Amino acid sequence: MYRHQLLDCHSRIKPYVHRTPVLTSRLLNEMAGAKLFFKCENFQRMGAYKMRGATNAILLLSDKERANGVVTHSSGNFAQALSLAAQSLNVKAHIVMPSNAPEVKKVAVSQYGGNIVVCEPTIEAREAKAYKIAKVTGATFIHPSNDSNVIIGQGTAAMELLEDYPGLDYIFAPIGGGGLIAGTALAAHYFGDNCKVVGGEPYEADDAYRSFHSGRIESNLTTNTIADGLKTVLGDKTFPIIKKYVHDIIRVTEEEIITAMRLIWERLKIVVEPSSAVALAALIREKENYHDQQIGIIISGGNVDLNQLPF
Amino acid sequence: MYRHQLLDCHSRIKPYVHRTPVLTSRLLNEMAGAKLFFKCENFQRMGAYKMRGATNAILLLSDKERANGVVTHSSGNFAQALSLAAQSLNVKAHIVMPSNAPEVKKVAVSQYGGNIVVCEPTIEAREAKAYKIAKVTGATFIHPSNDSNVIIGQGTAAMELLEDYPGLDYIFAPIGGGGLIAGTALAAHYFGDNCKVVGGEPYEADDAYRSFHSGRIESNLTTNTIADGLKTVLGDKTFPIIKKYVHDIIRVTEEEIITAMRLIWERLKIVVEPSSAVALAALIREKENYHDQQIGIIISGGNVDLNQLPF
Repeated sequence: MYRHQLLDCHSRIKPYVHRTPVLTSRLLNEMAGAKLFFKCENFQRMGAYKMRGATNAILLLSDKERANGVVTHSSGNFAQALSLAAQSLNVKAHIVMPSNAPEVKKVAVSQYGGNIVVCEPTIEAREAKAYKIAKVTGATFIHPSNDSNVIIGQGTAAMELLEDYPGLDYIFAPIGGGGLIAGTALAAHYFGDNCKVVGGEPYEADDAYRSFHSGRIESNLTTNTIADGLKTVLGDKTFPIIKKYVHDIIRVTEEEIITAMRLIWERLKIVVEPSSAVALAALIREKENYHDQQIGIIISGGNVDLNQLPF
Repeated sequence: MYRHQLLDCHSRIKPYVHRTPVLTSRLLNEMAGAKLFFKCENFQRMGAYKMRGATNAILLLSDKERANGVVTHSSGNFAQALSLAAQSLNVKAHIVMPSNAPEVKKVAVSQYGGNIVVCEPTIEAREAKAYKIAKVTGATFIHPSNDSNVIIGQGTAAMELLEDYPGLDYIFAPIGGGGLIAGTALAAHYFGDNCKVVGGEPYEADDAYRSFHSGRIESNLTTNTIADGLKTVLGDKTFPIIKKYVHDIIRVTEEEIITAMRLIWERLKIVVEPSSAVALAALIREKENYHDQQIGIIISGGNVDLNQLPF
């Protein structure tokens, strides 16, 4: 089932997303003791892989549903992704954002045509406001990660990576809400040749690691991490896929994230957000276990505030 | 003559350099009112187009000359380029660097196998030391820009860009010692379809602009610019080509350079050095004159100290 969903999804979204390039670095290979292939979703439209899932979710709506618009709550990349995907497809997008969201994020959502609705900065307020908008306008609610169509959409990045490099032994990806890692794990299962998927997660927001080991959805004890895209938690759609198809989850410190981010900037010459560096940080932390392997690494996005760099 | 030299050079250096990608951005196109094609030499080996000219110069040496090594004076990208090109070809490279060169630059040269020789931080001391090394060791001196084989090598970036986009109306490139703009102008003349070349230069190091207009080689009155790759001056090999084949030179302020650099980082998601942003800054400054044109922009390199960013 997933196999066909992934294939259909990839054909469906192709006209609306970029096929992003894969970069390599001799020096990073030497440092990791493995062959690394970086799938650069920072070059995706609006700067992150989220564009894939958002586009897929909207394309699967009926004409009537499209006419009523879509709604989500997000202060991050999914807010921009849903806005741009909706704009491309001539659909109205309502974006519930907390009142303390950075100005730069609000401007980006507006530029992509999203209708910003401000709410109190709590999870409850976000959800209540989105629910109300859906009820009043008839808009379809699309969750940033815990949505089957979104998960499948995110998996298309790993599909493309495996098309380019079918012999990958592993793919590393960061874990926030789990949409990317779940889609990646499905893609690796159906299109890889015994390719295993490993997640990277900050110690400071390690709900997925603890959920993976306890067998039930855990919440975050802290979210005090520079990887601002990874503060969210798993859900009932993402967790079962992660439990079944993900090989391992490795936690990393804030220092390791910043070191990996710097390596990517200096060696690959690309601008990536801190969340993107978590996958490489995880590999470097346990590199002894991956010696000489061929490893794909999903660079999730490049939307970073240049005034707030950690170096 | 130049046409064949460029074609031969491109075949010769191909195994040793990357064919770099060309990036575009809808938002930058809108902002400039033109169609922009960024040739990303920040993804070149060692992070800058200088790798092309250095490789060509060494490949054109006789076996005997190669056995005696090469020498240059540079504290910038050419020091790294000559070191890496020499290492790839099993040739010894002596790099004369001023005693006040940043530690990070010395480390990079050492990593690429260059033999660093420190001298006093004056032009006279640099040249004297390089001359002495050439005399004692028999090494061939290779100038970072004012060398015919280096100029031809640098032109191969524009050749590739024109292969990908034959309809370009203009190519913009930064001007330091003039090797890149001279090579670019030759490539555009022989491989473009009436493609004109425009140079960008900081007001704070505007020797080329003034030379272009006075008709003789002028020196810099100041070199107080963030574009540290553009502080050098034209020479007797670069200037005649620039005089004959370059269409125009546009000067930009430090603020315009930083603004353009930030646009490239934010919109293209790539790490580029300040010198690289000068070409885009020049276009933006006079964009009314280039409305709706197809414009190639050479992104010269990405070797920037992340601890010294202007934002």
